[in-house]
Amino acid sequence: MREAEIPVVLEPLGRTVYVLEKTKILEAAVRAGALLNTPCGGQGTCGKCRVRVVKNACPPNEAERAAFSAEELAEGMRLACQSRICGPTTIEIPRASVIGAAYQILGAESETTADEINPAVRKQFLTLTPPSREHAAPDLERLEEVLGNFKSDLSLLAELPRRLRAWSFSGTAVLADHRLIDFEEGDTRTQCFSVAFDIGTTTLVGVLLDLNDGRERATTSRLNPQTTFGDDVLSRILHAREQPDGLKDLHDAIVAEVNGMIDELIEQAGVAREHVYEATFAGNTTMQQLLLGLDPAALGEVPFVPVARRGVLVEANELELNIHPRGRAYAFPVIGGFVGGDTVAGLVATEAADTDAPAMLVDIGTNGEIVLCHDGQILAASTAAGPAFEGARIHHGMRAAAGAIEKVLLDGDVRLNVIGDMPPIGICGSALIDVVAELLRIGVVIREGLLLGDDLMPEHIPEAIRRRVRQEGNGTVFVLAERHESGTEESIVLTQRDIRELQLATGAIRAGISILLQRAGLKVSDLERVYIAGGFGNFIRRSNAQRIGLLPSDLPHEKMAFVGNASLAGAWAAAVSQKARAHAEEIARHAQHVDLSLDPAFQMEFAEAMFFPETVAPT
Amino acid sequence: MREAEIPVVLEPLGRTVYVLEKTKILEAAVRAGALLNTPCGGQGTCGKCRVRVVKNACPPNEAERAAFSAEELAEGMRLACQSRICGPTTIEIPRASVIGAAYQILGAESETTADEINPAVRKQFLTLTPPSREHAAPDLERLEEVLGNFKSDLSLLAELPRRLRAWSFSGTAVLADHRLIDFEEGDTRTQCFSVAFDIGTTTLVGVLLDLNDGRERATTSRLNPQTTFGDDVLSRILHAREQPDGLKDLHDAIVAEVNGMIDELIEQAGVAREHVYEATFAGNTTMQQLLLGLDPAALGEVPFVPVARRGVLVEANELELNIHPRGRAYAFPVIGGFVGGDTVAGLVATEAADTDAPAMLVDIGTNGEIVLCHDGQILAASTAAGPAFEGARIHHGMRAAAGAIEKVLLDGDVRLNVIGDMPPIGICGSALIDVVAELLRIGVVIREGLLLGDDLMPEHIPEAIRRRVRQEGNGTVFVLAERHESGTEESIVLTQRDIRELQLATGAIRAGISILLQRAGLKVSDLERVYIAGGFGNFIRRSNAQRIGLLPSDLPHEKMAFVGNASLAGAWAAAVSQKARAHAEEIARHAQHVDLSLDPAFQMEFAEAMFFPETVAPT
Repeated sequence: MREAEIPVVLEPLGRTVYVLEKTKILEAAVRAGALLNTPCGGQGTCGKCRVRVVKNACPPNEAERAAFSAEELAEGMRLACQSRICGPTTIEIPRASVIGAAYQILGAESETTADEINPAVRKQFLTLTPPSREHAAPDLERLEEVLGNFKSDLSLLAELPRRLRAWSFSGTAVLADHRLIDFEEGDTRTQCFSVAFDIGTTTLVGVLLDLNDGRERATTSRLNPQTTFGDDVLSRILHAREQPDGLKDLHDAIVAEVNGMIDELIEQAGVAREHVYEATFAGNTTMQQLLLGLDPAALGEVPFVPVARRGVLVEANELELNIHPRGRAYAFPVIGGFVGGDTVAGLVATEAADTDAPAMLVDIGTNGEIVLCHDGQILAASTAAGPAFEGARIHHGMRAAAGAIEKVLLDGDVRLNVIGDMPPIGICGSALIDVVAELLRIGVVIREGLLLGDDLMPEHIPEAIRRRVRQEGNGTVFVLAERHESGTEESIVLTQRDIRELQLATGAIRAGISILLQRAGLKVSDLERVYIAGGFGNFIRRSNAQRIGLLPSDLPHEKMAFVGNASLAGAWAAAVSQKARAHAEEIARHAQHVDLSLDPAFQMEFAEAMFFPETVAPT
Repeated sequence: MREAEIPVVLEPLGRTVYVLEKTKILEAAVRAGALLNTPCGGQGTCGKCRVRVVKNACPPNEAERAAFSAEELAEGMRLACQSRICGPTTIEIPRASVIGAAYQILGAESETTADEINPAVRKQFLTLTPPSREHAAPDLERLEEVLGNFKSDLSLLAELPRRLRAWSFSGTAVLADHRLIDFEEGDTRTQCFSVAFDIGTTTLVGVLLDLNDGRERATTSRLNPQTTFGDDVLSRILHAREQPDGLKDLHDAIVAEVNGMIDELIEQAGVAREHVYEATFAGNTTMQQLLLGLDPAALGEVPFVPVARRGVLVEANELELNIHPRGRAYAFPVIGGFVGGDTVAGLVATEAADTDAPAMLVDIGTNGEIVLCHDGQILAASTAAGPAFEGARIHHGMRAAAGAIEKVLLDGDVRLNVIGDMPPIGICGSALIDVVAELLRIGVVIREGLLLGDDLMPEHIPEAIRRRVRQEGNGTVFVLAERHESGTEESIVLTQRDIRELQLATGAIRAGISILLQRAGLKVSDLERVYIAGGFGNFIRRSNAQRIGLLPSDLPHEKMAFVGNASLAGAWAAAVSQKARAHAEEIARHAQHVDLSLDPAFQMEFAEAMFFPETVAPT
């Protein structure tokens, strides 16, 4: 529902997002893929998330008046965690405000550009001396004098002599690593693009990137068409194994959808297909193998063995991707059968593995992956967190899309935020966390997860809340939106079963975090940073995440960072930076996979984590 | 005409050739691709060409009795240059009797085998530990623990997990360089083959090689089907440039013929197509570019620029070669537009560039290439020698095939040797040299190349010769076979025009030799070795080659070696030895191309060389 939203341009990312008026700048930035520093947890006290609002800046609040001089405030300087969107605007994000590798994704205006924007695909315009009797070197040698040694397909070699002569030995060479992809007429350096994809079990997200500045030129997302063959990876592995042509069904479905997305991206950006030279893909191990057409059967049975650990670089043709005919496709390296390229991409994007201080990445998607980086070690585990955060198995669950309730506050009555400012049609992951946390806070849900009926409810619960608890079908529900308020024909409710699903999902993740910390001999208080990634809604209140036990309750807020779709951010980084790609390979090579189900302590931790935590950190 | 010929097995080459009774062993060995040491020029004086005749040894002559003890003679030891074939036999060739790299081609029985038979394609049988929960490494990693790092096509990766599990993690890996070509069920190490081709302008020759021992398993040759589009490279370049689909015509024609030869080779040897993993090709620059489908237009005009100098390694699929679907094809590096991969292959096979002593390779095909190797320098030149030696532009010229007159002796009358012991149907290159040299010797042809009519002929010419000189059409001819003796409806003759063609061909080569020697500051007497390669007939009498001026008359016989199809021998070496392939690249990289037409001295030398030489060396 973009009509009701306000366009905000984020620079130097060059990306426009549409948000509701009064949305925090920090949230708008996250939506655009910019991860800002908020060590104080968005309290407005550390002053690290400085941005400049070019026009329509809201009046500064007290925290901002303390953080900036009057002159700075007049120039539009604001704190992203405090200031809100007060009209169509452009937000400039200084480098210092960005978390680690994210800046790479943002593009750059500084002198460090050359280091950061250094894609595998590069173009070089050249004019050669034509051959003469005295200097009759072969065509390739003449090119290699300028370009260095390269390999090339026969299909290009066959064209080269004619093109060189037709274009008077001048043109633009397209190189990837040491392979000549094409030789184009004239100077085409401005036209050099790549596509980067997050291939989730449920959702596919793609961006078209300009390799000259690393910026996004178009974006799109689609439902993964493989859902026809099963909601989760195991049912798809089963389909591949049991059905005739099962693997082909799955492979063809995602390739066709990705090609559709490429069509849309180049159409949106007005870019020629033959100027897109590479595609990068980050997804879980099964999704990546299905994309590549690699038999996933061994991923469906003990001991869950992937085909390859390292990244797979293939000809785009081998995948029948509709980009340049000699373009390439790169799928991320993986850590194990259930810790895939999406997690590696997340580690690249957050730089979690790059500091000496202990850091953790918690990637919540259809499964939950947890990685602890400490002292050069990378310990990675996966949990069957279940797809609750993406809306699956939740009665009115849905993805974080238009019509989804994304925030819930219990404030005498229920107050909702709906994406797209429309009547709600379902609940996304962030709202699920909010509502259960709020019900826990006021005592309508108790530690064991029970949603109390009217008879058991404490007396202080206001009437407006109390009358939302009803018996429906064969269980208790909490009504978020009455039938007349909803965008569907029925009321939007949270069920007792939804709460159980959330307990399972959060319990598994909390137990995994606990086991990894034990392995490393660390305590929660030793963690310097915890990155929470996932497409379940970009903003979760930290206190709520802790209250439901998704994150340890003794983790200070300023150490948590919600980083959104870190898998896409990593795929993006790998498209625009060879260093990021090498880093991904390095991470996958060094990471140790911890099989939680082999750990006798895990079942106990998991069982304990099924209760919501007793104590919560102060909000 | 194999019916009339005797089978001779050459060991350790493992090759059978069919020759006429009384053929010299040396000639039989050359036909089998074995280049023997004959520094004395086959005079029986140096004793370097020792072989053992396993049965049916002819009685030793005086030279052999001097060279061997009675015991050795009883064991069948003979000199290959002296002894003849006296019945079906096996000839054992000791290593010491073989010229340089040729032994590599022969296969080996000595302890040096591993060094010499070291093909790019190798097989390894392996049994892996199956994955367990404790060791759940990816399939590729499990393989790489044994095989080292490799790359692979998606088509094989897609199959790998299923194969590993179906075959209990055991099988045979096929590797080429660091690429995994296949993973086969069971132990298939004995089935590992390659094909090597000499792709001449006129003739294609192919062999199937067993990569376990480097030996030939089958051989075949065909007329190059591109002759439909023109006899020489320039007319084919023209066809490629001027005709719609001209390049495709030429490319498709040779690929189809090569595929037909591959069909024949695997049929002959009873080998499975999917066990042939590589094809190597040596040919002139134009032939190689046409095979690869590379536009040859720039080879047809000044300054005659090839696409690439280095060898081209491509997927066999890219060429649509019918070998293993993930097999590879290697085309030799070239030195220039007119000094091609066939010449480089010849240098590899003869090891002409490997000694400190000055050596020369003269490769006589449709063109004539001359390479002088001296003091680390490699100087290469080509001459438009014309296809006279291959029978083209010669009135009754033909290739060295069944029915070709291959030797001519004037001994009171004309005595002929015809390949296949049948009535003659034409003259091949070696006979052309013989007859002109003999006519020069007895004075029926004079230095200027004139074939004397009856009126001008010296008185001592015997009547039998004299009556063979006739006026036919509008010129003088010399009758080699009368109509009733020939296998055609007409007499076989040498024309005045044929002599002119020979003068042009030999003159160009001799002038080229002279210019290269001048460039290097050398004299003929400085040359340690001259290798003469070409498919014009394996045996040419050295004195005749000198008499007509093909080779300098002051070159001692023991320094000349006729090496037959050195291009095929080089392609063979590159198939069975990575060292040979690396050597080929090294040669092409370091060789300097000498453009004779730019050398002001060349025209003068050429003009002078048009006269047959004044003095000849003693026979």
